[in-house]
Parts: sequence; C-alpha cells; structure tokens
Amino acid sequence: MSLQTLAKEFVNLCNQGKNFDVMRAMYAPDIVSVEGDGKETVGKEAVIKKSEDWAKGVDFHGEKVGGPFFNGPNQFAVTFALDVTRKGSGKRMTLEEVGVYTVKGDKITREQFFYDGDH
Amino acid sequence: MSLQTLAKEFVNLCNQGKNFDVMRAMYAPDIVSVEGDGKETVGKEAVIKKSEDWAKGVDFHGEKVGGPFFNGPNQFAVTFALDVTRKGSGKRMTLEEVGVYTVKGDKITREQFFYDGDH
Repeated sequence: MSLQTLAKEFVNLCNQGKNFDVMRAMYAPDIVSVEGDGKETVGKEAVIKKSEDWAKGVDFHGEKVGGPFFNGPNQFAVTFALDVTRKGSGKRMTLEEVGVYTVKGDKITREQFFYDGDH
Repeated sequence: MSLQTLAKEFVNLCNQGKNFDVMRAMYAPDIVSVEGDGKETVGKEAVIKKSEDWAKGVDFHGEKVGGPFFNGPNQFAVTFALDVTRKGSGKRMTLEEVGVYTVKGDKITREQFFYDGDH
C-alpha cells in the first residue's frame, strides 16, 4: 500500500468516527505516540489505552479531519477539529490539532500531536 | 523568547502577509527547509530565494494561517491556506499546507511543508 493510499484511508475512516479501527489496523506494534507536552507512549496497546482513557473524559459529538498532506517518502499530516464536551466542566468546545504520522512498511510507527493548551 | 512567543509572532506576521519579514528575522543561518517531495534546501539565503522564486509564479491574493500548535519543547505547527492565481494557467486556487517548525535558540532551524500535489 502506498503512503498516499494509507493516509487517505486514515482520513476517510476518521471522518466516519472510526479512529479506534484506524489504530488497530494501522499502528505498528512498537509505535511511539508523542503528546503536545512531549510525553511519549510506546507500544500499540499502551497507545490505544491512552486514547481510550482520554475518550472517557469527554462526550464526543463529532470530528472533521482535513488532509492528508505529505512530506517526503514516509510522512503525512492531518488536521483534526474535535467537537467535545468535557465531562468535568460540562463545557463544549472544538479542539484543534495537527497530527504528523511516520509510516514504515504499511504501518504507522510514530505519531506526533500538536495543539495549544490542555487537550 | 519562548517557543510560544516566537510561534505566535510567526502566525501574527504571516496573517499580515509579512512572510518574508518572518524569514529574515526568525530563520537560523543554517536552516534546513524540506518541501513536500522531500527535497531539502540548506541555508537562510537559499531558502528565502526558494520562496522568492515560488512567489514569482503566482499572483498572491492573501493567506490565512492557523495555529500555532505545539509539540514538545521546540516544535510548532501551523496551517496555511494560500489564495493564489497561477500565472501559467491563470487558475485561482486555495493551496492548503501544514508547516512544522523546529526552533533552537530563538531561531527556526528546520521547516517541513506538508501538502498534496503540486504547490
């Protein structure tokens, strides 16, 4: 599968709300996930659990994913606009992020999330 | 200057169309600029000339720059929507890009542009 094919499938599935299907299908076993503060989580199961834990803290209304955009032979970027209500505060907000993904052998080996403030 | 201060100034100036002022003020002498196809240009003057050459091929109507978004101690990302008419074809279009910037010592040492297709 080409980088382009994988990245377009990534965006299509995320725009259908199938983010966890994407993680299970496309993450490499030894993926490294880097949050905005620089904290790294290593390994497919640990990274999926991180997202599951995050999702427990919000009511999720939907998302718009833009891109994919490409750089070099094995990286793509997408934009996320996540429409959520934080369960703690009850406040509804749109969280904007940029995700940068590195792909090797048809699997995502690294993801970096860029955002401003708490997410 | 903090990463946040530099990145916010970057976005403010670009949203005023002052992209070349940003390059002259914020690029490190040995900056590396990576285009979507992976091609690298090295050195502040060469990178500014690359942008000048690109700008000669378009009529520039304006741009919207989103962000900044942050990852770790020394990287930020922005989104670009460039409203241009290509001089060759006369076709007006919005070019969407993601830029990822690495900052060391108050200067941008690396930039990576992510996009889809010719730019």
